[in-house]
Amino acid sequence: MSEGKPIALDAMGGDHAPHEIVGGAVHAVRERGLPVVLVGPPRVLYEALADHDATKEIPIVRAEEALAMDEGALASLRRPRSSIAIACHLVRQGNAGAVVSAGSTAGIVATGRLRLKGQQGVLRPAIAVALPTRPKPSLLLDAGANAEVKPEMLLQFAHLGAAYAETAYGIGKPRVALLTIGSEAEKGNKLVRRAHELLQSSPALHFVGNVEGHDLLTGAADVVVTDGFTGNVALKTMEGAVRYAFDELRQAVESSRLSKLGAVLQRSALRDLAHRLNAEAYGGAVLLGLNGTVVIAHGAARAQSVSAACQLAADLAKGGIVARIGERIAATHRTHRLW
Amino acid sequence: MSEGKPIALDAMGGDHAPHEIVGGAVHAVRERGLPVVLVGPPRVLYEALADHDATKEIPIVRAEEALAMDEGALASLRRPRSSIAIACHLVRQGNAGAVVSAGSTAGIVATGRLRLKGQQGVLRPAIAVALPTRPKPSLLLDAGANAEVKPEMLLQFAHLGAAYAETAYGIGKPRVALLTIGSEAEKGNKLVRRAHELLQSSPALHFVGNVEGHDLLTGAADVVVTDGFTGNVALKTMEGAVRYAFDELRQAVESSRLSKLGAVLQRSALRDLAHRLNAEAYGGAVLLGLNGTVVIAHGAARAQSVSAACQLAADLAKGGIVARIGERIAATHRTHRLW
Repeated sequence: MSEGKPIALDAMGGDHAPHEIVGGAVHAVRERGLPVVLVGPPRVLYEALADHDATKEIPIVRAEEALAMDEGALASLRRPRSSIAIACHLVRQGNAGAVVSAGSTAGIVATGRLRLKGQQGVLRPAIAVALPTRPKPSLLLDAGANAEVKPEMLLQFAHLGAAYAETAYGIGKPRVALLTIGSEAEKGNKLVRRAHELLQSSPALHFVGNVEGHDLLTGAADVVVTDGFTGNVALKTMEGAVRYAFDELRQAVESSRLSKLGAVLQRSALRDLAHRLNAEAYGGAVLLGLNGTVVIAHGAARAQSVSAACQLAADLAKGGIVARIGERIAATHRTHRLW
Repeated sequence: MSEGKPIALDAMGGDHAPHEIVGGAVHAVRERGLPVVLVGPPRVLYEALADHDATKEIPIVRAEEALAMDEGALASLRRPRSSIAIACHLVRQGNAGAVVSAGSTAGIVATGRLRLKGQQGVLRPAIAVALPTRPKPSLLLDAGANAEVKPEMLLQFAHLGAAYAETAYGIGKPRVALLTIGSEAEKGNKLVRRAHELLQSSPALHFVGNVEGHDLLTGAADVVVTDGFTGNVALKTMEGAVRYAFDELRQAVESSRLSKLGAVLQRSALRDLAHRLNAEAYGGAVLLGLNGTVVIAHGAARAQSVSAACQLAADLAKGGIVARIGERIAATHRTHRLW
């Protein structure tokens, strides 16, 4: 299938494109043994590859246009020859196994929907984000692709997430939970009450019930489903709260004379942790439900994170995530006959 | 008006009722000079007051029933003589200036709506929570009273929150923001796009635009409005993320031999901070929009937090928050003629 096919890496997406993206490609090829093609303006990319002495290791596919980080969904329609559009095209034609881009999320989602199209039976593609729980990450979806959803979409998001957890983490029966504002079934709004019924009556899902915001980072479930509005607010709130906690800690330490020594000693442990939170919370965003895997790297991604995103894309493609989702969605149609 | 009237303190709500609640009443009376009446079973409360040698300082109003912490909205209908119902009744009759309870939020909201009724023109009461930003707290509302809302309610929440910020923090023109998933006006779902229009066209509000989840703890606005579903998820996600950050930090410290000394030194600064986050994030929940002020203390509140909640209730009552809200809502009706 897509095994062995290269990753189509959008060289022009991200705050540090193209140099860190090219650096990530070189790392993925040399350190991980992954096949990668770079998509972007050939002259620029050739020079960047030459800096790594890698012009003979990594092929370039031409794309002279690019979506800017502040361009949204509409720009993707106006730029059929953008680097992200060409990367999607390579997957559509069977010449690449998956797409990786650190470009703007809105642009990637719009381009992916347009160029790769949704899988048969999938109502809406969704963004799954890996939260830094232990021992394995919990997947939160939808993290922002769909601000307005129907209960049936939440049921599908559960299947998209379960397929991801199986493929990327080898979890046999992923525990699926529904994000709401009380653990009882009758809590929440109309959307989640109906979604709760659908999830509960799905034999192909291991539904463990409702979870609340404070459960997101405890590893209470492998997959947490929500609408893209709530998911995006929760994700960004989490990001802000972690940053806040570290800032407060720094101030608490600095205001106490006794603990100044402690601050010096802990500095490296703290920095490692902050880095890990940032990388893990956003390194693993995947657009699911299209005819091809699209990994969305963080806009600020440097070479190491880009390389990790290529690994994730390769793992998902090799594990046949698109086919797994297709099977799950087809089975859901047979069970529910809802749409 | 309500100045000088006592606070009606529900002695039977909360994990540590009645002893910590009674302790809080004693603290509020002796250290803060606030008049307080305790509502609950007289014999039990008399004995608890006797432990503090305070039987002559604090009056007791009889209520033999109580709502359990796990009882929700329905129980409040079945218990017209519960301590929280009697406390509301005291305010309704003009015998108390405000209510404080550490009982279950759902029970307090349902009882408050039933016994105090909504203010004229207020579509829905909302819960405002003070977030620990600096220099002054940001108010987030609705934090969970209304899982399903209309855009006009979000506009009203802005006025409820602005009245709170004026009254409790003396902010002249509170900056109001709308919580959504992108800073541009067209981002978000139908609800927030329409609410954005309403907020923008309100001359009586200082609307500063959209904010995202990561802005909640930066003090970007004095009042952040959202629906009760999103608000509750955001608040609990914040709580979970802060706890997660501290847990991760502890582990990072423990795994490094060098930084063990640092951990010892920092222990007290850390504990202080964790305590402050917990107390501040939840000590200031206020149910707004009823004919009377209801402060919801944290269920785990100890005497100090109960006393602080009494202070907040007294400040809001003394500042005439109910009248301020009434004026704002009346003016909104004249401006918008929406309902």
